[in-house]
Amino acid sequence: MNRSQNVVIVGAVALGPKAACRFKRLAPQAKVTMIDQSDLISYGGCGIPYFVSGDVSDAGQLRSTSFHMLRDDKFFKNAKDIHVLMHMRAVSIDRPRKQLHVQDILNGENHVLPYDQLVIATGSRPRRLQVPGADLKGIFTVSDLAGAVAIKNEVAGGSVDKAVIVGGGAIGLEMAEALADLWGIETSVVEIADQILPGIVSPVMARMGQHQMGKNGIAIYLKEKVQRFEGNGRVARVVTDKRTLEADLVIMAVGVAPNTDLARDAGLKVSPRGAIVVNERMQTSDPHIYAGGDCVEIMDLVTGKPACFPSGSLANRQGRVIGTNLAGGNAVFEGAVGTFVIKLFDLSIASAGLSLERAKSQGFDALSVFVVQFDRAHFYPEKELVYLELVVEKGAGRVLGIQGLGGITSGMFARVSAVAAILRHRPTTADISNLELPYAPPFSSAMDVLNALGNTAENTLQGKNRVIDADQFAEWWLNRDRGDIVFLDCRGWGNAEDFVKRYPEHWKSIPQDELTDRMEEVPKDKKLVLICNTGVRSYEAQIMLDQAAIHDTYNLQGGMAAVKQWGLDLLAPDPLDKA
Amino acid sequence: MNRSQNVVIVGAVALGPKAACRFKRLAPQAKVTMIDQSDLISYGGCGIPYFVSGDVSDAGQLRSTSFHMLRDDKFFKNAKDIHVLMHMRAVSIDRPRKQLHVQDILNGENHVLPYDQLVIATGSRPRRLQVPGADLKGIFTVSDLAGAVAIKNEVAGGSVDKAVIVGGGAIGLEMAEALADLWGIETSVVEIADQILPGIVSPVMARMGQHQMGKNGIAIYLKEKVQRFEGNGRVARVVTDKRTLEADLVIMAVGVAPNTDLARDAGLKVSPRGAIVVNERMQTSDPHIYAGGDCVEIMDLVTGKPACFPSGSLANRQGRVIGTNLAGGNAVFEGAVGTFVIKLFDLSIASAGLSLERAKSQGFDALSVFVVQFDRAHFYPEKELVYLELVVEKGAGRVLGIQGLGGITSGMFARVSAVAAILRHRPTTADISNLELPYAPPFSSAMDVLNALGNTAENTLQGKNRVIDADQFAEWWLNRDRGDIVFLDCRGWGNAEDFVKRYPEHWKSIPQDELTDRMEEVPKDKKLVLICNTGVRSYEAQIMLDQAAIHDTYNLQGGMAAVKQWGLDLLAPDPLDKA
Repeated sequence: MNRSQNVVIVGAVALGPKAACRFKRLAPQAKVTMIDQSDLISYGGCGIPYFVSGDVSDAGQLRSTSFHMLRDDKFFKNAKDIHVLMHMRAVSIDRPRKQLHVQDILNGENHVLPYDQLVIATGSRPRRLQVPGADLKGIFTVSDLAGAVAIKNEVAGGSVDKAVIVGGGAIGLEMAEALADLWGIETSVVEIADQILPGIVSPVMARMGQHQMGKNGIAIYLKEKVQRFEGNGRVARVVTDKRTLEADLVIMAVGVAPNTDLARDAGLKVSPRGAIVVNERMQTSDPHIYAGGDCVEIMDLVTGKPACFPSGSLANRQGRVIGTNLAGGNAVFEGAVGTFVIKLFDLSIASAGLSLERAKSQGFDALSVFVVQFDRAHFYPEKELVYLELVVEKGAGRVLGIQGLGGITSGMFARVSAVAAILRHRPTTADISNLELPYAPPFSSAMDVLNALGNTAENTLQGKNRVIDADQFAEWWLNRDRGDIVFLDCRGWGNAEDFVKRYPEHWKSIPQDELTDRMEEVPKDKKLVLICNTGVRSYEAQIMLDQAAIHDTYNLQGGMAAVKQWGLDLLAPDPLDKA
Repeated sequence: MNRSQNVVIVGAVALGPKAACRFKRLAPQAKVTMIDQSDLISYGGCGIPYFVSGDVSDAGQLRSTSFHMLRDDKFFKNAKDIHVLMHMRAVSIDRPRKQLHVQDILNGENHVLPYDQLVIATGSRPRRLQVPGADLKGIFTVSDLAGAVAIKNEVAGGSVDKAVIVGGGAIGLEMAEALADLWGIETSVVEIADQILPGIVSPVMARMGQHQMGKNGIAIYLKEKVQRFEGNGRVARVVTDKRTLEADLVIMAVGVAPNTDLARDAGLKVSPRGAIVVNERMQTSDPHIYAGGDCVEIMDLVTGKPACFPSGSLANRQGRVIGTNLAGGNAVFEGAVGTFVIKLFDLSIASAGLSLERAKSQGFDALSVFVVQFDRAHFYPEKELVYLELVVEKGAGRVLGIQGLGGITSGMFARVSAVAAILRHRPTTADISNLELPYAPPFSSAMDVLNALGNTAENTLQGKNRVIDADQFAEWWLNRDRGDIVFLDCRGWGNAEDFVKRYPEHWKSIPQDELTDRMEEVPKDKKLVLICNTGVRSYEAQIMLDQAAIHDTYNLQGGMAAVKQWGLDLLAPDPLDKA
């Protein structure tokens, strides 16, 4: 066989194998060598929490194809004609000679691999806290499959009763669920920011997710900084600036950093944030060297600025682009809008684009709106409430991002996916108002929750819907004894009755359809919080009150459904869930 | 209250109430009068099949808000300040005087309603077959809620053992499921076309849906024309050109026609296909008259030509646009790409944009590709196979449409929704290859089924993936005794063994990863159909065979999963399900 071309790939987890396989399909006669430091290659790293939890029973499943073939070196040789060198570390790139210098980790031998084209798929490595005791046994990062096996061996051994997760981002929460749900480990999460999933979702969404974790037994400590780990050889305690937590196991999940030493040492262009710079074809500053995955930065299609999006999914798609280009094609990867989804027990939270906080930090003058509605026709028996938040730029009403919360098979994922798909086309609120989802009652609503979200955003931007969110509601409610606010329930008496009876001084009932006739009952000297189940009737009430020249009114977005999901159940014996 | 403006709305089902309510929120002082021929107004007409089935227990639920208030005339008066005149027929529009002439159906009295602006929301009416016996009792159309109540009273009365549905479109199939599933009625569907859902999905998807209906006891007769209905006063038999079916109940579901007599008589512009012509603001040729919903035509954003899309969902969104414009706003409704979804027992079929057949009839030089893959990570325990078909224009690879089949809470709906959202932006296959869905194993795959669909389309357009679909497979298989084809199973021996043993003359096993070493076993003188579970390994095998200069090969798209869903189970005692 004429080995027309010689391609070497550094890293064999996600992007590397994808680039190799795509390239080989286009150039079957070429020679491809893929190296990796481990002998565990080509695995679904995002599946690690499900392997640790036991949902995925053995590590081989993460390394297998959908048709149950283990993707080991033999598989790549026989099914793909790709040569894999395992336990092999890339030492340096001799760009003038087009040679990769490697070292066999097992025997220390050095080798030289000549290449025509090189692919850097070195990924990222988890950050580690630099605090005393950080090197104690029993403290793990979620770095690779070998590390995951070590964690699972620990928990399966039965000696872990209490665990502490440092970091309330995606991986931290997934690992918390993994430990608590199937293994019954008493699990806490310590997060330095004032919310979980910082930078990804809004404080309100984060609080709802936190409430869900709390309901499932996971304690979350926000605004706490880990100061040291204590233990005699093995970790026993995590000491924060506010408390000491016992821990038989600690997982540090405080973010990742791109692995770019190899590229940097070779003189390839690296960005100020430490990621390899590539063009749309995924070429580095050396046209014979491609890079992709967690070690590069790509264009953020919402902000128009380069950014890092560590994601096994982006890595796979970039790998295919690289594979095409290695074979002389001209595929481009234009960038990403940034998407996210996480399972939190029986709920899920997803996002696409920017959260309000990130939008503001990127210089957008933005606001967000929040809508709660059934995912399917409200008259259809099977349905779920979904919670959506839309982030929009003031003025033109450009949509910058969306977040959603709902059951794991609810329609939330479809709504966030649809907006994710159009975000790069710079949609406005009108595009969301008129976004066309397939409609039938078992799947969607005639005026779908997504359309309602666009409508609400437009109304709010135009000042027609003056709102507060559940965070603000909670603050006002907990300070209700200041006496400057009346909570006006716009639902029918059947819904309002229990609230009025329990909180007669603060809660007042005037159903929206009786409001015109009962306008004289409305308190004129106080701030009014308008309340219904989801925020629709209270919005109508606000318009009616405006007509009567009563303007100091605030529509509770998402209504009592949002408040309850937030963790405030006004009719419970202890209304504020402290979780 | 200063009644600054006088708006009259003809029709109070979907668009009418939405336009009225939106307008009143923007112009609370205006006067709005809405008329309807019935006293059943403002209902979810798309919910009728679920009301007939019993999923929705009483008709009032279809007429109620999500917070269980009945949307009757009192509701519109008290909650919305909208005046409803029921049992009122619109007779004519006196445009110069801006007056609507109406007649009270109950007492025959004539009235004149002056207007500043008028909205025509007259919807559509079901077509009726013009054959002998079409007026017999027991023959219904699905026209309105009153008609639905009549149908449900019939079936709930217990006298219906056998029913025939005429028409295998969406409403026909939904009604068939409604009658068969909960009421246990022996139900047949007669369709004049050669597939169910004609014009909406491909023959292969239709066949899969038909198989699903058959599994659930519904007989479907294609390419049959109803010639007459027979019975003594009440229908007893449906006579087609091929058979006679006993029937205690017949539902005609043979499409709808826009109700445009009022508009046409008033001299408003009506299109050749009989729909009211409106601009993007939903204004008719008279700027004081708006129209929307089933009685108008709008822009098809895929073809760029006007088209009718009867849909309660589009009607609602158009209603909001009209409401805004009645109040002096400048909202636009740019058009629709055409979306569809239907529940067929525990499966669903959805589409957006054009099917291959419609694309061709619209002058596109197009092809379609078919992919089967799990909706979630293949290693994640909960997952479902989803079946997607992408319609693309040759050459530039523009995506014209998508269809999907999967479980009703599978990820199929999200994938079709995401493509529906971007179709108007003229995506190419590369946009589908790189489409960014939120990724985590419980929700999606790193290389998602949608990305795989784009990849497959690109490969097929470039001639790198020569395919057949399940229809073609079935034809070749059923004619396998011609002896010109070998079916080459590229899966492991464990999968292939039973097939080889049962069909030793036709079925051959060479696993894809052994193909290079066993190339001499490949028959060189026959057409090869390459087979695996879903079409991935057979595609790899095709590339390997090409390398060995064996080119007369056909990759079975969707693999054995597609064949089985199509209704051909080669290992069953009777492989061809005749359903």
